[in-house]
Amino acid sequence: MSGSPENTLLPIQFEPIVRAALEEDLGRAGDITSQATIGAHDTARAVMATRQDGVVAGLPLATCAFRTIDPDLSVDPECADGDRLLAGAVLARIEGNARSVLAAERVALNFLMHLSGIASLTAAYTRKIAHTGARICCTRKTIPGLRVLEKYAVRCGGGSNHRYGLDDAVLIKDNHIAVSGGVARAIEAARTHCGHMVRIEIEVDTLAQFEEALTAAPDAVLLDNMSPEMLSEAVRRNAGQVVLEASGNIDLTTVAAVAETGVDYISTSKITMAAPPLDIGLDISARQP
Amino acid sequence: MSGSPENTLLPIQFEPIVRAALEEDLGRAGDITSQATIGAHDTARAVMATRQDGVVAGLPLATCAFRTIDPDLSVDPECADGDRLLAGAVLARIEGNARSVLAAERVALNFLMHLSGIASLTAAYTRKIAHTGARICCTRKTIPGLRVLEKYAVRCGGGSNHRYGLDDAVLIKDNHIAVSGGVARAIEAARTHCGHMVRIEIEVDTLAQFEEALTAAPDAVLLDNMSPEMLSEAVRRNAGQVVLEASGNIDLTTVAAVAETGVDYISTSKITMAAPPLDIGLDISARQP
Amino acid sequence: MSGSPENTLLPIQFEPIVRAALEEDLGRAGDITSQATIGAHDTARAVMATRQDGVVAGLPLATCAFRTIDPDLSVDPECADGDRLLAGAVLARIEGNARSVLAAERVALNFLMHLSGIASLTAAYTRKIAHTGARICCTRKTIPGLRVLEKYAVRCGGGSNHRYGLDDAVLIKDNHIAVSGGVARAIEAARTHCGHMVRIEIEVDTLAQFEEALTAAPDAVLLDNMSPEMLSEAVRRNAGQVVLEASGNIDLTTVAAVAETGVDYISTSKITMAAPPLDIGLDISARQP
Amino acid sequence: MSGSPENTLLPIQFEPIVRAALEEDLGRAGDITSQATIGAHDTARAVMATRQDGVVAGLPLATCAFRTIDPDLSVDPECADGDRLLAGAVLARIEGNARSVLAAERVALNFLMHLSGIASLTAAYTRKIAHTGARICCTRKTIPGLRVLEKYAVRCGGGSNHRYGLDDAVLIKDNHIAVSGGVARAIEAARTHCGHMVRIEIEVDTLAQFEEALTAAPDAVLLDNMSPEMLSEAVRRNAGQVVLEASGNIDLTTVAAVAETGVDYISTSKITMAAPPLDIGLDISARQP
Amino acid sequence: MSGSPENTLLPIQFEPIVRAALEEDLGRAGDITSQATIGAHDTARAVMATRQDGVVAGLPLATCAFRTIDPDLSVDPECADGDRLLAGAVLARIEGNARSVLAAERVALNFLMHLSGIASLTAAYTRKIAHTGARICCTRKTIPGLRVLEKYAVRCGGGSNHRYGLDDAVLIKDNHIAVSGGVARAIEAARTHCGHMVRIEIEVDTLAQFEEALTAAPDAVLLDNMSPEMLSEAVRRNAGQVVLEASGNIDLTTVAAVAETGVDYISTSKITMAAPPLDIGLDISARQP
Amino acid sequence: MSGSPENTLLPIQFEPIVRAALEEDLGRAGDITSQATIGAHDTARAVMATRQDGVVAGLPLATCAFRTIDPDLSVDPECADGDRLLAGAVLARIEGNARSVLAAERVALNFLMHLSGIASLTAAYTRKIAHTGARICCTRKTIPGLRVLEKYAVRCGGGSNHRYGLDDAVLIKDNHIAVSGGVARAIEAARTHCGHMVRIEIEVDTLAQFEEALTAAPDAVLLDNMSPEMLSEAVRRNAGQVVLEASGNIDLTTVAAVAETGVDYISTSKITMAAPPLDIGLDISARQP
Repeated sequence: MSGSPENTLLPIQFEPIVRAALEEDLGRAGDITSQATIGAHDTARAVMATRQDGVVAGLPLATCAFRTIDPDLSVDPECADGDRLLAGAVLARIEGNARSVLAAERVALNFLMHLSGIASLTAAYTRKIAHTGARICCTRKTIPGLRVLEKYAVRCGGGSNHRYGLDDAVLIKDNHIAVSGGVARAIEAARTHCGHMVRIEIEVDTLAQFEEALTAAPDAVLLDNMSPEMLSEAVRRNAGQVVLEASGNIDLTTVAAVAETGVDYISTSKITMAAPPLDIGLDISARQP
Repeated sequence: MSGSPENTLLPIQFEPIVRAALEEDLGRAGDITSQATIGAHDTARAVMATRQDGVVAGLPLATCAFRTIDPDLSVDPECADGDRLLAGAVLARIEGNARSVLAAERVALNFLMHLSGIASLTAAYTRKIAHTGARICCTRKTIPGLRVLEKYAVRCGGGSNHRYGLDDAVLIKDNHIAVSGGVARAIEAARTHCGHMVRIEIEVDTLAQFEEALTAAPDAVLLDNMSPEMLSEAVRRNAGQVVLEASGNIDLTTVAAVAETGVDYISTSKITMAAPPLDIGLDISARQP
Repeated sequence: MSGSPENTLLPIQFEPIVRAALEEDLGRAGDITSQATIGAHDTARAVMATRQDGVVAGLPLATCAFRTIDPDLSVDPECADGDRLLAGAVLARIEGNARSVLAAERVALNFLMHLSGIASLTAAYTRKIAHTGARICCTRKTIPGLRVLEKYAVRCGGGSNHRYGLDDAVLIKDNHIAVSGGVARAIEAARTHCGHMVRIEIEVDTLAQFEEALTAAPDAVLLDNMSPEMLSEAVRRNAGQVVLEASGNIDLTTVAAVAETGVDYISTSKITMAAPPLDIGLDISARQP
Repeated sequence: MSGSPENTLLPIQFEPIVRAALEEDLGRAGDITSQATIGAHDTARAVMATRQDGVVAGLPLATCAFRTIDPDLSVDPECADGDRLLAGAVLARIEGNARSVLAAERVALNFLMHLSGIASLTAAYTRKIAHTGARICCTRKTIPGLRVLEKYAVRCGGGSNHRYGLDDAVLIKDNHIAVSGGVARAIEAARTHCGHMVRIEIEVDTLAQFEEALTAAPDAVLLDNMSPEMLSEAVRRNAGQVVLEASGNIDLTTVAAVAETGVDYISTSKITMAAPPLDIGLDISARQP
Repeated sequence: MSGSPENTLLPIQFEPIVRAALEEDLGRAGDITSQATIGAHDTARAVMATRQDGVVAGLPLATCAFRTIDPDLSVDPECADGDRLLAGAVLARIEGNARSVLAAERVALNFLMHLSGIASLTAAYTRKIAHTGARICCTRKTIPGLRVLEKYAVRCGGGSNHRYGLDDAVLIKDNHIAVSGGVARAIEAARTHCGHMVRIEIEVDTLAQFEEALTAAPDAVLLDNMSPEMLSEAVRRNAGQVVLEASGNIDLTTVAAVAETGVDYISTSKITMAAPPLDIGLDISARQP
Repeated sequence: MSGSPENTLLPIQFEPIVRAALEEDLGRAGDITSQATIGAHDTARAVMATRQDGVVAGLPLATCAFRTIDPDLSVDPECADGDRLLAGAVLARIEGNARSVLAAERVALNFLMHLSGIASLTAAYTRKIAHTGARICCTRKTIPGLRVLEKYAVRCGGGSNHRYGLDDAVLIKDNHIAVSGGVARAIEAARTHCGHMVRIEIEVDTLAQFEEALTAAPDAVLLDNMSPEMLSEAVRRNAGQVVLEASGNIDLTTVAAVAETGVDYISTSKITMAAPPLDIGLDISARQP
């Protein structure tokens, strides 16, 4: 259940976000509590550990937080993003200037807790459907400003990514269909307008719409809010022609039944917007004035 | 249960965040689906409505999203941040260029859903303790980049704000105490080092620590992970000297018991990091090519 | 030969670029020549006109340049992006404060000249192949910082867009193939790794590679540096299975022969990186102190 | 024909531009092709070589692109900006993580191709007039956002720089003259208004205007669109009093005749806005999984 | 003694600085005092008035501060930058939302006080030398981040601007001379290296150096730390050949003697870095809940 | 009289400000004088020394300026921020590329001179009241953009910081009082509205107001423009209940008398906005081509 070794982020993708988060927490005056109570040259050893079972995501960001505050801090990870950990497991050990450790602590943990929460919930969904060929994927319902990171966390949890924004793939919904004069015409319009490197998916509510969609050969069809029975019927009629994605109020108790219909993807906003944080803490294990 | 009329944000506080969120969603090519299927001059009327009961927060951000995309869109709110709504209630009506409405839709909803989720959960906590003098407050466990907005949403839900960052108040924790040579010395160090406009709070785990803290007269004491019995005892010994804040794994089922001990504030990270989004949607109600 | 009415940019996509260009030209002291020689309240009427035949692109940016300097300037376009103009045609009339007009002039023209140059050259290629079903498309060889604008200008000229960056579609090249252990395996790896909303194209140099690619069913194949004869043979063998794109040192004298082979797209970096600017000028037609 | 050793850029002048270009190309998801097909720890050796004769410009930017993506990449230049290279010559060797090399490749090449194109064309003009005392110089007709780099490339090609923007020197044109009440008055106004560290040049179309300009002793006169005969006459009348600059539709076939008139500078926008890119490529020479 | 009507700033030159200043003052939570004590819809009328005699500079920035906070505030100036005011004079009247007025007040005043301080001190120097042909000018000793504004304020006070930075003019100092192998050689190197639109000035300490400088015909010579006698001798020897600038520990008591030597410019860092603020205040004149 | 070892800034707090200041000084073309007259590989050793007695502040910024230009420069401080130096004392020695040293010189000195000026003046005030228990503190009258640095410099000079902005503490002034319906009501409103981590101070002009304020138990009272006699009376009536701050036109000649009344803090804007720069220079001590 570990994350693929291929799943990585480049520093250029997260450094500005980490820096902004540190600036948000430090404000203008910085960590006035540590300035008042800890010597400027005191050192500390600290351990970040999870207090819940889960899948970790965000270690490069946590490391970046500590080292943006102080390049002399050493940060030694004991696991990698995508790893499944049991409660109590150590994520990383940090050593160096005590004030620096404390100045970065909250930001490092906020990233780790939020992203590991997403990875862990995604993994929970993924395990529920491991006996099928279906995959869990995310949506554009993400926390503003963190989409790249949240989609990365979904991958850490074994999920797949839907489009990153309005610009990298076509997803035709009911409003577009109504304006275009029908399912087939909307698909045709997208094919004409967009370049050849853009996938086209259409959202349908009924099997009749689905049939019409198939005649226009989109790349994928999103079957919205259909019962497992309807989904099974759509899978049968599709006969492998296009990629099928099921969506709409699917949760951990229903996802297996949906997956067993034979759809290719199951998308849900729950794994991004509604994932509770994984409880991760930092403890100072040694101190030296 | 409505938000105070005093609780407002200035546009300068959220415009850059909204703009960045739009840029994140539009990517480089913009909304290619609408460009392909909707006429450049088509117009639409749309309605944003909640699909769950809850407290709304984020309307100025949603409005800003629509109008940053297109200053000619009209956005007419039918409620205000802090209002408690029943499922089905209309938040706002939007009218104008159809492509513009759809280009801003997801960002507007992502802000509204996330912030209204925080306001709604805060309000749920607040109602549980309405019969006491205690208030719910937030922490620094927030989603990176959105702290100002999340703290605003807490206020919309009737909660109070703890410090905004490391710089605007002192919170002395176990590590600071250990280095400083004790509870009283740490408080003294903070008083000496910080200016007279900075509040000083100290976190204690035991009643012995609490007694020592009182001798140094901090502004507030955070009673961490104490049972209601211990909290009651602390309230008794305090006799109104300092502000008392309870914290540590308090949830909707236990918050009333904690509040009834007589503490002044109850802080929890659940209302920010773990608040599920409020389900809010946008429907196109009329269209005109 | 006019641009599609669907082809538009949102202000949020170009305003920061225009602002940066103005700041680059104004430097620290601003337009010192006009400050010295023109009264602070003098007004002027100006005309922007093309001195060459061509296709215009960039009018919204030029307008934005004038109005970012001075919101009180009136800018009245007499044509629209995508329009084919003859030498001498007026693009827009500007009226207002004389210093404001001159402060924005060079930036407005630099955008117009560069983007109209791209649109005009794209249109020249497009006309050469109008008798075929092929379309011209662009590449990632663009001027750093202007990719969104240059791809927009390509569309203004009747061209189609290839991917916008490394992230919105897969393009497997020789290095990827070598590492992956062959054409088919590389396509398979891409399909496994990427989500279902990502198109996969592979670049091949020989018909043997092309045959192997077809067995793995990519979305598109880029036929690199092949002669018209080889391209025709590839079209024959493809029999409509995948989208075919020809590339490699194609110019205005050879593009028709390539298009006549039956390929779907012809990509060239010449239309972006090597398009000469269209000569456009601004003349002050009236002045009033 | 090599660039002066004095001609350098500071990293602070180009790092933000390179970073923005990388972000533009990587988009949100990064290099998904390499993530899918190349191991996270594979390494590669690569060579950047020119496929055309030309003068190189932009090596520090290319190096910056590789090392911004991955500080562990080694980049070893085999030449320096300003060097004249024959087709096939190696510019630099790069070694390190294979994905990192490919993630930076296109941006590195786009800078090198564009700037070396400018340097090469400038050098071509410069060679045409090497037998005279004249120098080629650039204008403010540059690609928005890249002016500093393009002016640097002009120097790499042996050219000289005109002003960098509206603020660092005065250039009085026809509109300014008309408002000011004549050539001499405009020069006088500039001298009065501007500080003593600002050069003043005036553009004239006729010898009569030129004579009037000389009476007011500007620092330089721009002789616009004059024939070689008129230019020679202006040189004669000037008798070394002010710097003379010729401008207006001068190209590689006419530049020598213009230079031979004795003018000091010949300015043209062709070397910036209309310089075709130099064809430079990157080849992976060795790979190691 | 009023500022020239030509002396203006464009909004694009100061809006980002004003916005950053407001963000610095508002921090994360905004104006919590007004939020707590003033109704969200209360209105106020306010007056900004000077409490000292002086020359005003910065009104457009103050206006921008108020209107960036709240575009509905009306700001009516009763004077213009460059005007000389007596203590008690009204600068502007502001009317609108009371919280908005107070949120912008401090930033508006900080700009006005600092810049008017510079303008007033510059004007004091200027008056001391009004009987001579000399002009006061500034240096690069300015507060980091505010150079454009401070140089503008110098002009408001009747002063002239020296170069804006290291890039817009050459100023050869002792270190450059030593490396170059002498005064004349350094001037020659600058002339060879820099384009024809760049002025060249050289700093000399002795009359011997001055003589050597004259042989190389720079545009200007900075006579550093010379007595009035030496300056008079330099003026005599110069006989109008180059612009002469005196510098070095000149203050209000000595500036007239320096100016009377016949030098053209007198530069001093005192008018920027050491100008005391002009005392300007804001009073609420009427309030309406 | 040395600065506390606790008084430090994190690099993340000043790096962007230093970078912006360098960009402001380098403009587009960089240091053209050094490019023309100094070899690209020449090296130099330089010394920064103070020419006046004073307290140093800003060394980390100066170091950052040199190393942002060129990470290979060595910068060796011979003192620390907060140290009191005599005229002639060396602040730091710099060694490395000669052009790099000169490119950063002015920015490094501008920060050092401005911040050391503030620290020195603060120290002068502090020494005047060393025989009392009072402390000097700053206000929000600071140079826009430099508040964090100026407040740091105040601490380097032995002063204390008032609030950093409108958001981190409540300061109720006359306008707030008038709207709120009186001194006590305004304090009550602040206590109700703000969280428990926010200090509340109120400004009063009269002893009657002071008495009313005491009844509402604010954290501090600002006694505005009171005579030493009134201040003494306020101290007597206060009897240690709240923190007392005196303010209003206090200068070096009157500050001791104010401090001797027994107030806790004396605030003045003079130490930030009106502090003359400390004269600090850089000399090249050795050069090597």
